[in-house]
Amino acid sequence: MEGSAAAPLRTRVCIIGIGPAAHTAAIYAARADLKPVLFEGWMANGVAAGGQLTTTTVVENFPGFPAGIMGSDLMKRCRDQSLRFGTRIVTKTVAAVDLSAHPFRVVSDKSTTVLADAVIVATGAVTRRQLHFPGSDVYWNHGISACAVCDGPAPIFRDRPLAVVGGGNSAMEESSFLTKYGSRVYIVHHRSTFRASKIMQDRVLKNPKIQVVWNSVVVEAFGGAEGGGGGRRLAGIKVKNLVSGEVKDLQVAGLFFAIGHTPATEFLGGQLELDSPAGYVVTKPGSTHTSVKGVFAAGDVQDKKYRQAITAAGSGCMAALDAEHYLQEVGVGAQEGKSDDRVSD
Amino acid sequence: MEGSAAAPLRTRVCIIGIGPAAHTAAIYAARADLKPVLFEGWMANGVAAGGQLTTTTVVENFPGFPAGIMGSDLMKRCRDQSLRFGTRIVTKTVAAVDLSAHPFRVVSDKSTTVLADAVIVATGAVTRRQLHFPGSDVYWNHGISACAVCDGPAPIFRDRPLAVVGGGNSAMEESSFLTKYGSRVYIVHHRSTFRASKIMQDRVLKNPKIQVVWNSVVVEAFGGAEGGGGGRRLAGIKVKNLVSGEVKDLQVAGLFFAIGHTPATEFLGGQLELDSPAGYVVTKPGSTHTSVKGVFAAGDVQDKKYRQAITAAGSGCMAALDAEHYLQEVGVGAQEGKSDDRVSD
Repeated sequence: MEGSAAAPLRTRVCIIGIGPAAHTAAIYAARADLKPVLFEGWMANGVAAGGQLTTTTVVENFPGFPAGIMGSDLMKRCRDQSLRFGTRIVTKTVAAVDLSAHPFRVVSDKSTTVLADAVIVATGAVTRRQLHFPGSDVYWNHGISACAVCDGPAPIFRDRPLAVVGGGNSAMEESSFLTKYGSRVYIVHHRSTFRASKIMQDRVLKNPKIQVVWNSVVVEAFGGAEGGGGGRRLAGIKVKNLVSGEVKDLQVAGLFFAIGHTPATEFLGGQLELDSPAGYVVTKPGSTHTSVKGVFAAGDVQDKKYRQAITAAGSGCMAALDAEHYLQEVGVGAQEGKSDDRVSD
Repeated sequence: MEGSAAAPLRTRVCIIGIGPAAHTAAIYAARADLKPVLFEGWMANGVAAGGQLTTTTVVENFPGFPAGIMGSDLMKRCRDQSLRFGTRIVTKTVAAVDLSAHPFRVVSDKSTTVLADAVIVATGAVTRRQLHFPGSDVYWNHGISACAVCDGPAPIFRDRPLAVVGGGNSAMEESSFLTKYGSRVYIVHHRSTFRASKIMQDRVLKNPKIQVVWNSVVVEAFGGAEGGGGGRRLAGIKVKNLVSGEVKDLQVAGLFFAIGHTPATEFLGGQLELDSPAGYVVTKPGSTHTSVKGVFAAGDVQDKKYRQAITAAGSGCMAALDAEHYLQEVGVGAQEGKSDDRVSD
C-alpha cells in the first residue's frame, strides 16, 4: 500500500488543496523538478476536487478567457497542467499534520503518510455558509449566489431588485456593490443592528437604493413564470420578521449570502498561527511564509480580503517560489530529501 | 480631438500598462462598472502591447492552459476580455502624471489628458537588459533567454551545458535552478567578485555543476549543425577575458541573461515612493497601496521578487479591488467623478 504507516512517501514539497492556489503551486513546483505530492481530498469540506470554482457556473473574470469558462472546466485544465509537469495527485483527505519536526509529516484519513521538506497549505475557505430553506437549493446559481463580486454583474440582475443576507462588512460592501446593477437592494438581517464598521454602515444607511429589513430571516425562495427559456429562475423570497412573526414577500431577482467564510484549517491542529477570531492562516504580508519555517500558505485559507480565483492562483505561484527558495537555502534534498520515485496510484 | 488639453477625459480609474497586471485590473474594474481607461502605450519601453509576454514564445506556467499558450495569444485574450467588459483602451504612451491634486491627471505624449479619481500603475519592468553582440538577436528565443524560471525546464536544455550572465542574487539563484536541468552551468561575470549575498555565493561556489568564468564577457553567440528540424539553435558562445584579452569558445545549448530589470517608473517623476536603488514602486505589503492615496501599483513595476505572469495578474485584480474599495470609501464619483461616456476612438 502506497505511503502506508510502514512506508511513508518522501517528497520535497507536499501541497494540500484543490483549487487554483494549490494547482498553480503544483505547476510551479513540478516545473522546478520538486516532484510535488498534492492531496486533493475526497469531498473535503463538502466540495469536490476543483474547489469553490466547481460550485459556480461561468467564470468571467479569470484573465485569459474572454468568453468566460465554466468553473469546473477551468479547474480541470489547471489539474491537467499540474499532472503534465509531474505532480503526483493523491485523492485522499488530509486528517492531520505534524509540523514540529523535519521532515514534516502529512497524514490522510486513509493512513497515507507523506514526509515533506516543505508544505504548502492551500485548503481554501469553505464556501460561505449557504443558508438552507425551502427553495434554497432549487434556485442556487439560478438567482441565489454566494459571491456578489463574481455574479453581481450578470445581466439577469440588471435593474432588478436584489437582496443580501448578512450584517457584517462583507454584507455592507456587497450591498453597495450591487446597487450599481440592481434597481434596489434589500439587506435582510436577523438583528436590529449591524456588526459592520461605522463607516460602512453609514454608507449603506445613506444609500437611497438600499433598504434594510431588520430582525428578519429568509424562510423560502420561490420562482416565477417569467425569465424565458423555460429555465428555473428566482422571482422572490419570503421573509419572516422575528419580532412580529409576520411573513412577507420580497420580489427579488437575486439573493446573495454574505454571512462569512470559514477557512479550512482544523486539520492543522493549532500548529500554525491563525488570526482571531476568523481562523485564517497568518502569512507574512507580501509573501506566503507562515509561522513555521518551511510551511507556506496560499489562496483563500490565508486571504480574507481579495478571495478571487486569480489572486489565489497568484499566491499559489508565490508559495511554490518561496518553497523553492527555502529548499535551496536549507539545502535539504541532496540525499535525504530526494523525492520518492516510486510509481503512484 | 478626444481628451485634448481643452477637453480632458474624465474617468473613475485610469490604468497604465499592457501586461497581465494591467488587463486583470481592467477586467475587474470594468466589471465593477468603473468604466476604466487603459493606456496601453505605443511601443512604450520598446515593447508591443501585451508586454513582456509578447517577447517570449510558449507560456507553460499560466494556470488554465495545460497545453501551453503563446504569450502573444494569452495577452490578446486578456485584452479582449478587458474590452468585453467596457474598458476603453487608448493606444498612446503616458508621458507624465500629476498625482498632487484630485482628480489625478494622466497625460500622454500626444496630449491626451485623462482625469481620474484613482490610478493603477502597471507599467512593468523593462525586459531584463538584453546584451547585444553578434548572434544575440539570431538566437534570441532559440537558446538565449532572459528567464531561467520560465524557459529553463524546456527539453532543449536538459543535460546540456548552459551559461548564465550576471553576478547578483538573480544570477546565483538562476544558476542553481538551472543545475537541475543542465549538465553543467557556467556563470560568465565581467568582474572578479560577485555582487550577490554571501550565502548565495557560497552555495554557487560549492555546487560542483557550476563553474564561474571570471572577468569575462560574451562577445558572440553561434549556432551549430545539430538540433534537427532545420531550425536555428544556439550551439555556443565566444567569451572574452577582460584581463588577458583571450577569447575562447564555450559550447552551450542555453544562455540566460540575469543582469537585472528596470522598472518603468520614469514617467512618474518621483511622485511615488520608489525603492532604492532599483526604483520599484513601493507598495504596502499584502496590498497594492502606494505612497499616494488613490494610486495603486500592480505587476512587475512593484514586484522584484516573483515577477511571473500569474502573480502580476493576481496583483492586478488586487489593485482593482483596492481601487474600488478606495472609491467607495471616499465617495467620489456620484457627480463629479462620474466616468465620461463620450465614445472613444
